[in-house]
Amino acid sequence: MEIKIMKNILDRNQNKADEVRKLLELKKVLMVNVISSPGAGKTTLLERTCEELGEKFRLGIVEGDITTDRDAQRLKKYNIPIVVINTEGGCHLDSHSISKVLGYFDLDKLDVLFVENVGNLICPSQFDLGETFKLALVSTTEGDDKPDKYPMLFREAKAVLLNKIDLVPYTNFNYNNFRSDLKKINANIPLFEVSCTRGDGLKEWFDWITEKINNFQ
Amino acid sequence: MEIKIMKNILDRNQNKADEVRKLLELKKVLMVNVISSPGAGKTTLLERTCEELGEKFRLGIVEGDITTDRDAQRLKKYNIPIVVINTEGGCHLDSHSISKVLGYFDLDKLDVLFVENVGNLICPSQFDLGETFKLALVSTTEGDDKPDKYPMLFREAKAVLLNKIDLVPYTNFNYNNFRSDLKKINANIPLFEVSCTRGDGLKEWFDWITEKINNFQ
Repeated sequence: MEIKIMKNILDRNQNKADEVRKLLELKKVLMVNVISSPGAGKTTLLERTCEELGEKFRLGIVEGDITTDRDAQRLKKYNIPIVVINTEGGCHLDSHSISKVLGYFDLDKLDVLFVENVGNLICPSQFDLGETFKLALVSTTEGDDKPDKYPMLFREAKAVLLNKIDLVPYTNFNYNNFRSDLKKINANIPLFEVSCTRGDGLKEWFDWITEKINNFQ
Repeated sequence: MEIKIMKNILDRNQNKADEVRKLLELKKVLMVNVISSPGAGKTTLLERTCEELGEKFRLGIVEGDITTDRDAQRLKKYNIPIVVINTEGGCHLDSHSISKVLGYFDLDKLDVLFVENVGNLICPSQFDLGETFKLALVSTTEGDDKPDKYPMLFREAKAVLLNKIDLVPYTNFNYNNFRSDLKKINANIPLFEVSCTRGDGLKEWFDWITEKINNFQ
């Protein structure tokens, strides 16, 4: 019984996601679904990305959080439209909540919509929001074994950002292990090794996302 | 409809959890449900704890992982009974899977059963496994805002371990923010500030868990 219901939930999620995707393609709004564990650096990545791309493109953000608007508070200084979805215990966003909040944006005046999903390396990777693509973020302090232990997200994502490379000298993180495990799961996925606090490696990420946005216009 | 089914799932989980708890009380086996984000240090905590308590008590471990037996491989050197539960995508353990694996242990020869839940700060806190108590583990590199943003676990847990305090000098982690947010959510919860790799603060944790085990006999 649970399985049948789960299938119904996923079917209904998929139908709504397809609708969202169609609408965003029509409006030429690229939607990036940013997924990571709690505290891997999603909000800091968005801060750096807003600073770099805020002049070139019209950005919007959906903040998914169980409770509080703390991440949105950190981002409001960039003066771009932000909508918070509090899931009240829910462990991921779904396409229905995204569909609802799209009404709060003027889609004719957006180039990109970043969705910061709830901090969770598992459940968000199973739900299509209608995004153009998923972006996997993982931090070195979580250990080099994450692609092998949590393969779904790394299979689903269009690119991986490995954050907090500035902390590698103080941990037992092994780049070779991480890269070779990732390759086994998703052979050609672009990998950006960055420090969102210090700035290392972000130019490659900015170049890549800029090209994606331009190609979507 | 989903809500009704969710209630059924939770009811059935609770019934089985109550059974598990009764059995473990009868057998005088303390069960600790260890919950954290991916990569916060659950396995390293269990390594240190096995080294310290392995001579004094009869330990057992249940390893919850989506896939792989990597964590169990790290722990097998301690020569204690370990059972792996691969959830195959599932984002948390439940009482039914715990009930099943109890059959693999000789409960008359155990004092403590540590359950390392799936790496997830959200879903595992909503499912009673029949544990004596939940233990919340969080690492400084995840940021000081985790109790406020993910309050459920910190409300449910009997103690909090704040791990990776050796990395604080390289981050913007603020102890006062963390401690005061935690206090708001769970005023009297014991907090152990530790480095499971370097050993700082672990004595207090060992003393506390030793007392809990002794009191359960």
